[in-house]
Amino acid sequence: MNSEIITIGDEILIGQVIDTNSAFLAAELNRLGISVTRITSVADTRESIIKAFDEAALRADLIISTGGLGPTSDDITKHTLTEYFGTKLVLVPSVIEKIKNLLASRGVEMNELNRKQAELPESCEILPNSAGTAQGMWFKKKGKDFISLPGVPYEMKAIFREQMETRFRQRFTLPVIHHITVLTHGIPESEMAGRLHDWEAGLPDNMKLAYLPSPGLLRLRITGRSNNDPDSLKTNMESEVEKLQLIVGDNIFGYNEDRLEVIIGKLLKENNLTLSVTESCTGGMISLLITSVPGSSVYYKGGIVAYSNEIKTAELNVSPYTLLVNGAVSQAVVEQMADGIRNRYQSDFSVAVSGIAGPTGGTEEKPVGTTWIAVASKKRIATHIHNFGEDRGRNMQKAANAALFMLWKEIKDCL
Amino acid sequence: MNSEIITIGDEILIGQVIDTNSAFLAAELNRLGISVTRITSVADTRESIIKAFDEAALRADLIISTGGLGPTSDDITKHTLTEYFGTKLVLVPSVIEKIKNLLASRGVEMNELNRKQAELPESCEILPNSAGTAQGMWFKKKGKDFISLPGVPYEMKAIFREQMETRFRQRFTLPVIHHITVLTHGIPESEMAGRLHDWEAGLPDNMKLAYLPSPGLLRLRITGRSNNDPDSLKTNMESEVEKLQLIVGDNIFGYNEDRLEVIIGKLLKENNLTLSVTESCTGGMISLLITSVPGSSVYYKGGIVAYSNEIKTAELNVSPYTLLVNGAVSQAVVEQMADGIRNRYQSDFSVAVSGIAGPTGGTEEKPVGTTWIAVASKKRIATHIHNFGEDRGRNMQKAANAALFMLWKEIKDCL
Repeated sequence: MNSEIITIGDEILIGQVIDTNSAFLAAELNRLGISVTRITSVADTRESIIKAFDEAALRADLIISTGGLGPTSDDITKHTLTEYFGTKLVLVPSVIEKIKNLLASRGVEMNELNRKQAELPESCEILPNSAGTAQGMWFKKKGKDFISLPGVPYEMKAIFREQMETRFRQRFTLPVIHHITVLTHGIPESEMAGRLHDWEAGLPDNMKLAYLPSPGLLRLRITGRSNNDPDSLKTNMESEVEKLQLIVGDNIFGYNEDRLEVIIGKLLKENNLTLSVTESCTGGMISLLITSVPGSSVYYKGGIVAYSNEIKTAELNVSPYTLLVNGAVSQAVVEQMADGIRNRYQSDFSVAVSGIAGPTGGTEEKPVGTTWIAVASKKRIATHIHNFGEDRGRNMQKAANAALFMLWKEIKDCL
Repeated sequence: MNSEIITIGDEILIGQVIDTNSAFLAAELNRLGISVTRITSVADTRESIIKAFDEAALRADLIISTGGLGPTSDDITKHTLTEYFGTKLVLVPSVIEKIKNLLASRGVEMNELNRKQAELPESCEILPNSAGTAQGMWFKKKGKDFISLPGVPYEMKAIFREQMETRFRQRFTLPVIHHITVLTHGIPESEMAGRLHDWEAGLPDNMKLAYLPSPGLLRLRITGRSNNDPDSLKTNMESEVEKLQLIVGDNIFGYNEDRLEVIIGKLLKENNLTLSVTESCTGGMISLLITSVPGSSVYYKGGIVAYSNEIKTAELNVSPYTLLVNGAVSQAVVEQMADGIRNRYQSDFSVAVSGIAGPTGGTEEKPVGTTWIAVASKKRIATHIHNFGEDRGRNMQKAANAALFMLWKEIKDCL
């Protein structure tokens, strides 16, 4: 079964707003086994909306739109669809009641604009909105299904999460789609493609591989389809993933929605271990990733952004002589930094990063992108050098991901 | 002049990736006076790509696509467009050289897949990619222009920023569009709309105001159009902005592409002043913003992410008694933190933040989102309390922006 998503709004076409609605809907529809074959964003005009619906109806069975259901004059989707489906607006008393109660709970009185939100196309099935005044609408025409949802992400998601899965399962016979995403670090995309060539070629016809790179990480997504047998699809996919594990091995750190900082947090928490961080070129990014995890205060003691040599010496006990002889971006210094923060903050593990993020500061011997990472534990101090490239922002991200990956491996080794 | 954007990639249609490329391109094209009338996302299949190009060419003068130019087998845009434009792939020696050098700078050896990235359609104009191996391509057919860019946002943006404005101005006659963006902090959107109502209503017909909110910041973009007179358009817009300044006053911190961390960096550098930071709930975000500015090592001494009370006491000299009596999120503690880091790191200014980012940790008296910020200088320690709301990620961003805004004002006051 094929679907298309239409997001309606001038703000999307002038780049003022990033369209996150279609990503949410696409993920949800795919999870339910409804393929999304196209996403279209059009302006808030009658002509664009009608054209988009007309075209989508030629290709897909289900068309879902978002946007243009607000109470102001630039919101014209409801009127346009009323015309498009040859019906008329009627005031729905139960919806007036609901809107009045919703507004009252926010301390707002109902006005004429809000009241108009209860005027809905006679022929549609109303999809009640628990989070706002714009109701969703489900139309049927010539064997096709058309759903119009509000553009406010929070309201659109409320309607979808509360009712759409049940309604879809009642209306459609849904196939089975399963995704497994394998998360890797340390193998560039082109090298990975070389290594996986034979494995990929040997995948059954109902499975497909996609490479999803981001700075320092590479996600491998395997998608499988089946018409009737979810259990054996899952089993077959898992056995393909097992083969993949043999090829990629230690470079796999997780699956699906896993994040390194969450995996690390779990490991530390479960084993009553603590962490401290000192970073130079990453400027706080590693601390930020670690603390982005709710509950991280249990295992994260804190960190020092040691930007100047003075701070490295005064706070982390890095030897001025070592700094002079080796430079701040060196194995010796990053080892002393990791050791220094671990002792000072009395943590079980510590991470230290020192590198040249760029755009300036590079030399022939140590070009921009040169980055030393150290992870210290009771057992040892592991170090690694990387050469990330020219771009400051990406260097910081790559360094942060490399440091987290290395930390994760060291924690596992110590358990 | 009308354009359409086509973003190619299965990852978009399954909702695994939010399509940020089209928002970037739409904003850039609009800035140049090229309207975007439709955005379409399609799958990595030959048929979808050709269909999308065919349809877009019927409606628009310029079609820009992103995605599908990587070296792996799921990237098929280059082959599809080679066929679509009736040309053939040829190995371009200069591109091989460039790719080799780019990879060498990252310590990666060229392999067969990378080499294939230098095979490009004979009939296209190559848009060199300084940031990756996938070159952009510009095709012309039946009076229409088709541009294919890589899908990796960083690479797509590099090509666009480095060359497209110049190339577009050579190729097309673009109308005169001028934007002035006024950057503000501290006035919520609805309040700002009230304050600006009369000023906005009095804008000339060729000027338009847009509100661009992001967590903690509100950008006001004034767009002006003229058919022939760029100089007087600019002058007229500047005089409107002067009126705006009288209304919004001290809440304006900059214009256009300014960023608080850059403005602060300039002020510090010009006056030989230094900075240190200590943060709890923002977890490193303020340090990260400060160090995202190239050259920040001149004025940024470093920072401490003081997540635990132990660290606050041991490193920042916060009194255990004050912590006990007032709690970590309090005026007294944040003052001591700011004072502690400033003394310890011997900096002219310091910033301290302590708050409850959430989702847990809130109480009736101090709900999630409660955040204290302090800025210390030789002269005084200024403090401010904020209540940001429920969302952890947004709280961190709002706190970081509020802290930078406060720091900027304190630095200006001290000069």
